[in-house]
Amino acid sequence: MPIKNGAEYIESLRGRHLKIYLFGKLVDEPVDHKMIRPSINAIAETYDLAANDPELASAHSSLSGIQVNRFLHIAESAQDLVNQNRMQRKLGQLTGTCFQRCVGMDALNSLYSTTYEIDGKHGTVYHKRLIDYIGKVQRENLVIGGAMTDVKGDRSLSPSQQEDPDMFVRIVKRDPKGVYITGAKAHQTGCINSHWIIVMPTMRLKQEDKDYAIVGAIPVDAPGITYIYGRQSCDTRSMEDGDMDSGNAMYSGQEAMIIFKDVFIPNELIFMDGEYEFASMLIERFTCYHRRSYVCKTGLGDVLIGASAAIADYNGVANASHIKDKLVEMTHLNETIFAAGIASSYLSHQTPSGNWQNDDMLANVCKHNVTKFPYEIGRLAQDIAGGLVVTMPSEKEFRSPETGPLLEKYLKGRKGVSTENRMRILRLIENMTLGRNAVGYLTESMHGAGSPQAQRIQIARQGQFEKKKKIAKRLANIKEGEASETVLEPSEYFDRIFGSDNKKK
Amino acid sequence: MPIKNGAEYIESLRGRHLKIYLFGKLVDEPVDHKMIRPSINAIAETYDLAANDPELASAHSSLSGIQVNRFLHIAESAQDLVNQNRMQRKLGQLTGTCFQRCVGMDALNSLYSTTYEIDGKHGTVYHKRLIDYIGKVQRENLVIGGAMTDVKGDRSLSPSQQEDPDMFVRIVKRDPKGVYITGAKAHQTGCINSHWIIVMPTMRLKQEDKDYAIVGAIPVDAPGITYIYGRQSCDTRSMEDGDMDSGNAMYSGQEAMIIFKDVFIPNELIFMDGEYEFASMLIERFTCYHRRSYVCKTGLGDVLIGASAAIADYNGVANASHIKDKLVEMTHLNETIFAAGIASSYLSHQTPSGNWQNDDMLANVCKHNVTKFPYEIGRLAQDIAGGLVVTMPSEKEFRSPETGPLLEKYLKGRKGVSTENRMRILRLIENMTLGRNAVGYLTESMHGAGSPQAQRIQIARQGQFEKKKKIAKRLANIKEGEASETVLEPSEYFDRIFGSDNKKK
Amino acid sequence: MPIKNGAEYIESLRGRHLKIYLFGKLVDEPVDHKMIRPSINAIAETYDLAANDPELASAHSSLSGIQVNRFLHIAESAQDLVNQNRMQRKLGQLTGTCFQRCVGMDALNSLYSTTYEIDGKHGTVYHKRLIDYIGKVQRENLVIGGAMTDVKGDRSLSPSQQEDPDMFVRIVKRDPKGVYITGAKAHQTGCINSHWIIVMPTMRLKQEDKDYAIVGAIPVDAPGITYIYGRQSCDTRSMEDGDMDSGNAMYSGQEAMIIFKDVFIPNELIFMDGEYEFASMLIERFTCYHRRSYVCKTGLGDVLIGASAAIADYNGVANASHIKDKLVEMTHLNETIFAAGIASSYLSHQTPSGNWQNDDMLANVCKHNVTKFPYEIGRLAQDIAGGLVVTMPSEKEFRSPETGPLLEKYLKGRKGVSTENRMRILRLIENMTLGRNAVGYLTESMHGAGSPQAQRIQIARQGQFEKKKKIAKRLANIKEGEASETVLEPSEYFDRIFGSDNKKK
Amino acid sequence: MPIKNGAEYIESLRGRHLKIYLFGKLVDEPVDHKMIRPSINAIAETYDLAANDPELASAHSSLSGIQVNRFLHIAESAQDLVNQNRMQRKLGQLTGTCFQRCVGMDALNSLYSTTYEIDGKHGTVYHKRLIDYIGKVQRENLVIGGAMTDVKGDRSLSPSQQEDPDMFVRIVKRDPKGVYITGAKAHQTGCINSHWIIVMPTMRLKQEDKDYAIVGAIPVDAPGITYIYGRQSCDTRSMEDGDMDSGNAMYSGQEAMIIFKDVFIPNELIFMDGEYEFASMLIERFTCYHRRSYVCKTGLGDVLIGASAAIADYNGVANASHIKDKLVEMTHLNETIFAAGIASSYLSHQTPSGNWQNDDMLANVCKHNVTKFPYEIGRLAQDIAGGLVVTMPSEKEFRSPETGPLLEKYLKGRKGVSTENRMRILRLIENMTLGRNAVGYLTESMHGAGSPQAQRIQIARQGQFEKKKKIAKRLANIKEGEASETVLEPSEYFDRIFGSDNKKK
Repeated sequence: MPIKNGAEYIESLRGRHLKIYLFGKLVDEPVDHKMIRPSINAIAETYDLAANDPELASAHSSLSGIQVNRFLHIAESAQDLVNQNRMQRKLGQLTGTCFQRCVGMDALNSLYSTTYEIDGKHGTVYHKRLIDYIGKVQRENLVIGGAMTDVKGDRSLSPSQQEDPDMFVRIVKRDPKGVYITGAKAHQTGCINSHWIIVMPTMRLKQEDKDYAIVGAIPVDAPGITYIYGRQSCDTRSMEDGDMDSGNAMYSGQEAMIIFKDVFIPNELIFMDGEYEFASMLIERFTCYHRRSYVCKTGLGDVLIGASAAIADYNGVANASHIKDKLVEMTHLNETIFAAGIASSYLSHQTPSGNWQNDDMLANVCKHNVTKFPYEIGRLAQDIAGGLVVTMPSEKEFRSPETGPLLEKYLKGRKGVSTENRMRILRLIENMTLGRNAVGYLTESMHGAGSPQAQRIQIARQGQFEKKKKIAKRLANIKEGEASETVLEPSEYFDRIFGSDNKKK
Repeated sequence: MPIKNGAEYIESLRGRHLKIYLFGKLVDEPVDHKMIRPSINAIAETYDLAANDPELASAHSSLSGIQVNRFLHIAESAQDLVNQNRMQRKLGQLTGTCFQRCVGMDALNSLYSTTYEIDGKHGTVYHKRLIDYIGKVQRENLVIGGAMTDVKGDRSLSPSQQEDPDMFVRIVKRDPKGVYITGAKAHQTGCINSHWIIVMPTMRLKQEDKDYAIVGAIPVDAPGITYIYGRQSCDTRSMEDGDMDSGNAMYSGQEAMIIFKDVFIPNELIFMDGEYEFASMLIERFTCYHRRSYVCKTGLGDVLIGASAAIADYNGVANASHIKDKLVEMTHLNETIFAAGIASSYLSHQTPSGNWQNDDMLANVCKHNVTKFPYEIGRLAQDIAGGLVVTMPSEKEFRSPETGPLLEKYLKGRKGVSTENRMRILRLIENMTLGRNAVGYLTESMHGAGSPQAQRIQIARQGQFEKKKKIAKRLANIKEGEASETVLEPSEYFDRIFGSDNKKK
Repeated sequence: MPIKNGAEYIESLRGRHLKIYLFGKLVDEPVDHKMIRPSINAIAETYDLAANDPELASAHSSLSGIQVNRFLHIAESAQDLVNQNRMQRKLGQLTGTCFQRCVGMDALNSLYSTTYEIDGKHGTVYHKRLIDYIGKVQRENLVIGGAMTDVKGDRSLSPSQQEDPDMFVRIVKRDPKGVYITGAKAHQTGCINSHWIIVMPTMRLKQEDKDYAIVGAIPVDAPGITYIYGRQSCDTRSMEDGDMDSGNAMYSGQEAMIIFKDVFIPNELIFMDGEYEFASMLIERFTCYHRRSYVCKTGLGDVLIGASAAIADYNGVANASHIKDKLVEMTHLNETIFAAGIASSYLSHQTPSGNWQNDDMLANVCKHNVTKFPYEIGRLAQDIAGGLVVTMPSEKEFRSPETGPLLEKYLKGRKGVSTENRMRILRLIENMTLGRNAVGYLTESMHGAGSPQAQRIQIARQGQFEKKKKIAKRLANIKEGEASETVLEPSEYFDRIFGSDNKKK
Repeated sequence: MPIKNGAEYIESLRGRHLKIYLFGKLVDEPVDHKMIRPSINAIAETYDLAANDPELASAHSSLSGIQVNRFLHIAESAQDLVNQNRMQRKLGQLTGTCFQRCVGMDALNSLYSTTYEIDGKHGTVYHKRLIDYIGKVQRENLVIGGAMTDVKGDRSLSPSQQEDPDMFVRIVKRDPKGVYITGAKAHQTGCINSHWIIVMPTMRLKQEDKDYAIVGAIPVDAPGITYIYGRQSCDTRSMEDGDMDSGNAMYSGQEAMIIFKDVFIPNELIFMDGEYEFASMLIERFTCYHRRSYVCKTGLGDVLIGASAAIADYNGVANASHIKDKLVEMTHLNETIFAAGIASSYLSHQTPSGNWQNDDMLANVCKHNVTKFPYEIGRLAQDIAGGLVVTMPSEKEFRSPETGPLLEKYLKGRKGVSTENRMRILRLIENMTLGRNAVGYLTESMHGAGSPQAQRIQIARQGQFEKKKKIAKRLANIKEGEASETVLEPSEYFDRIFGSDNKKK
């Protein structure tokens, strides 16, 4: 029986007996933990949206022949990738935080094409296994977490060169039925709220790193897994009474560390085992999808722009020209991100396996803007908010018979505005610029799917500077020996734009 | 017989007897004028590209049933609009300047849908006339210039309020065969290089401005037209001997003022006459197309990035990390523009007339980035170039027997680089950042298709701040009277993104 | 007996029986409150620095004839104002937060010159009273808080027009010995940690606002005062066990709301009473001092740059060129702020009262950069830090026997780096970019001493655009009627720079 | 007899028989050359300002005992350096271009202290010779050009490693009376308008580069010197009839290449000869002065802000809020540069020789902002100007009886504004953003006194990151082995700010 909506999803998480540590203790039942629950609510929205707006958040899968949640769908067209972006923005609007499902979606899609090509070279059966697995999770409508980022140890050394070999997840034992892995994955988005985790390598590998070239699916409650919960700014406000001070009481993100100790993966759930030379293909395709998935942040941007417009209204300054101009600036930045994301999706091409892959240059451009613009949007939101956003008393003061009336009197905005509503919208702005969801809106925008420098490296690789030099030299009337013409560039970006017939000119 | 290529196009311009003033004199034959010719060469490339790469620069028109130059094509799909952007970037690469044909293309497309809607309301026959006219110019393969920007006089007054009624082009006389217009259009891109000019109003009109609500096609050599050529930075270098100092000797842009004195438009070439309430529709659709047409500047950006990469190479510093990083930054900015442009085109919708119109929010976002990023790309190009870009001696010094050898000796770059080539690439950078094509790359990027503030106003109108406020208030758990829900917003941007069923949430 | 050092200062705060509300309860003894104490420690540093480095943090006062804490000193030279900046930066380095004493210092100095001028016009004795008061607090070495920002209600209305007359602090009663005031001051920096509060008006006043034109000194424990403590991001981490998660366990800022209910000010402590036309002079001089006092943030910037350099080292990437370049960028921005601050101080002039006032244009330029650059420095710090800064487990996990060893193993950086130290420096970065001291480093940088728009208004007033137009027209060889020459400008900035003899040219 | 004013200065340049090449020909008399003359006029202003405002532009020299032009003055106090900045800004306002005398001023001051230290080590008499020389030029009131930038050849090789040894100026012959030098200096500001040139090395030298370690004074008309004039954007407009199209007909900058062929320097005018280890001291002190001298650009900024305010007024949009905001932004950026410059000057220290040297960190911060902000100010000026700034017809069209009246009619701005004046101010904006003085305002701002990366390297050297790491670690409560404490940093910036007693903390 598939999970049909958010409520059923939440129930599906009960009773799994995960080993989760938080504040020095094992968590009894994460579903009922006041600090964890908002992150579960965020994922629940991905179910409800699919139920309420199937065009946006579900798709017909030709793999399983049924309508599936879009997060479990293998892209069958460029429009499918655009639709991911549309859904991501909508969910950003609905939750104001990270809804934690893009890694899984992007992992399934990049594995889909990569396993096809591994099989083509090595005669393996990974692609078939993956299709079976995808069909199963589509039918059951489950949440897939993708586990990529290893803890890495000394960054100047490769996996096999590390003093401690566990700095990257690796196979430590094999038996006829499968393999056993050990290691740790850092900052795992939504892992505790998932049903399955797909483990993947995090960097280009060489022959000597063969044991690190492992991809496989693991149930979140597999023996040998320990979760250590990550702290977020203001996280404990979720555990206080009331709902005002948390700013966005319903929704938050989640990152935890996953530690694997001899965790078993059966053969039928292994999708790469030792084909180290395909690690970079998998990672590049994954990051290509994922950097464009950060379009979700434009949904959060919509929330913050809306909050800023609301507080300007409450403060009675909605018509000040500098306020209106700041709202325009925030919108302009937000839409610049959105444009690059959907442009990357529209400019997709079909892979040999048949699914669709978005444009890499524009995906990197999108994500690179994401590492900057949300910070500026957040700064402008704080500008519009006024200083009260960081000096307001706690909700308890609002509820107290001694101080409540004083605050009601003295923190009034323009006529007709409820003091409480004014405080609530300020707490939302605090939440997204300093508090719990600033983690998702700002820092995760910086580092998720690769830090800024990773995008700059990729933009450099896509830049086709040799081609551009030739274009410039023609206009400057420079005739040079054609030796440099044969320079091979690591990118075919202009061929993708202009069509490969244009290679000649 | 249609014009088949650039050479035929150039010949087609001869012998038209236009009244063009430049440096106080009438120009004999613009085709042979050394300062004007580069702007003609730029348009010639639009013919040659259509011949050499028909997929990119031509299209099958269902109006005329033939393959037509893409600049004359009425968009029959979103992909057609994307293809315009692809072609625009390519032509930017090929010419390094403004190739002057986008205004005509965007005018035809916006008139196509607007005349359809005028006819629907008023029972006029403008749409049919326009289709006939388009068919004709498609078959003859002509260049259409669009004349929109009036000189405007006192900007705080409407056309009919001006002290001098000619500050906006208007009908001064009528007879049974047509109308006569008087007035002036400023900074008309490529007008002298066109075969036809389509006159259009430049701003929202009211009933009392009825005589200003005139749209019609006029041959460039119609009696009563005077052209006054605009100066460009370093324009006279084109008239000096040699080709180095101009930087890009082959190509340039062109802007002139057109003065109409009782110029006749026959009835069959009139496409609006008095339907003042449609002026704003026409202008909004035109600017919507045209702001996204500024994707052309990414082609110029490619040239300037290429020139910067080349000079870094010639200077022997191509591997300095700060140089590489600056090339990445230039590329990132350039592609951010491109992404917004094609995203706007992809996100098109079909108009009642059947042609396609791109997304307005993203078109404005695209153009707004164009008002900033080329300046920053230009700044970085000057950074990489080094000071010599503005202190180099003239070509005459390079050619002189006294100073030539001294310069050859002392202005050498790294081994193996020709001093002349180093100078040539520096002159190209000067050309695009200070010189003749800086006009097109910088200032026209600022003001063409509307100055920055025009985009900010339009982004504000598209921003749906009321919708965003509701999104934010839901997350802040604010329950308010639903009065504000009925606020009408001037935009349906989110409906376009999410589908109109999403209106409810 | 004067307070001699930080420890004595802390003792001086005990037993005052202030009425402070926090989390719905009265605070027993703020000195012992774990959440409040770090803000007290920050002020204690201002005492210790004066003891340890008297050249930097104390001065000889010709008022009292003794060496006094620099925060209590009336500036007797431009160098005195520069020395304030030097001290402010140093204390920013020592505390990494707001040390809360600049408002008092700037209030005393602006009152010093303003009372002199009030007396000159009205024959009052405010200046003499103020000198007596200053002498007393200098001798006792006390902390003075300045209370300016009213809660303001509807911002489009003046104090006397508000529906509720208490939206601005005002005199509600008089008797022969003094006056009684009612109202509230919002976001009062360090008020609870002060010995005295000086109440001042917050905006330009008119005749009908006479009762709002009140300035006077009040002991913090005066009857009728209620303090409501402001929440800060992550504030409750100070109340958890351990010192790691708070990031900077020793120091924090403090903002509270002060509510006055019929609070008495005796005549001898009143420094303005009804001279409404001097409110704007007082405020302008205060903001002029205070906007330049934000040089303190460069000390916090030094901390954050240092933390970024340290984490880069711990992560083993200190030599990556992009990391080094980001540290340079942070430094460049930080020093740009510093330069404008000290330039404003150096460019001081003597007031009629004899003390010194810094330059207003450059003070506004300084503060305006402060509203932007710390956000960018913070963004770069997060970039260098890596994602772990927001996904790290709590200190309790580090101390736990179950998870501690796992974290020790898996969160190791480069060889030789203690995992705990790596975590500590990341928590400091979190503290300053999202956590408790982000309040002081970011949001207070935005809104303290006036929000960005306030500086832009003041820069416009100082801009002397009429003078600049004349300069430009001379070069363009424009000869115009000299009518416009007589335009009066609200600024003499160029006279201050060039000397008033330059007025002529 | 000293030169007393600008007119006498101009006469002093006549009849020198310099060998200057321009456009392939020898220049007869530069004073009468229409393209060269504006650069001479700019220097003439430095004489007139000294005459008209001696406080600002002259100083009493204790070397010669007389009042001397400030450009020839050795700084005797921090205030003297601040006064240089005040004068530089004023001259920027008066000329709107580069007035070409700062290199000489900064060269004299850096040589003053460096020769003193060379003599102290080597027992040479350079300092005495220099004082004699300075006394002489002070008494005669001459213009000194400083020649530093060699052409450099392959930038990865040192002077003595170059294939062609002349890529850096060097001693090629010696005799008892002096030395002979050969080589070339690129982009020499104002060299043709100078009376003397002081040749200096351009980079750090090693023992094998000894022959390149030569400093000496040479009259501009010494045998063996060839000047090759540099082209500037729109330079030939100065040679057209009329004065409108050049934008700023009176003033321009000048850069030329100087080629030395066996040029003699007598012993008494040699100030360094082989003491290669002092080359870097000389260069560092020179660039330290010179990077702060770029405060001159704030004077040009004042012109451009004034021109923008004027055109906004002429266009009738002076009260649009976005226009006013852009003028504020331009002012803010301009004053940010100014602040850093004068802060560097104020924070000077006395050298062992007795003269004063400004702060290096802040000089670099100043110049680094100069490499960016003028470009943004220029961009905003173009924004305010409107498109006409690049599409206006030539002056000849304005003067023509055919087109003049048409332009007068159609290019009118708001009522009461002369069309010609509107055009003039637009041409001035073109001049400073694309035209002749854009060279000085933009590109020279980028590359003069070192390109941006040179400042970043110097900011890194001054950044004291080790010190900052210690500050951060203290707050994070990190106790580390004190090994790192002994790290030597190349800067004492914090000692300069806080006093060296602060080293301890």
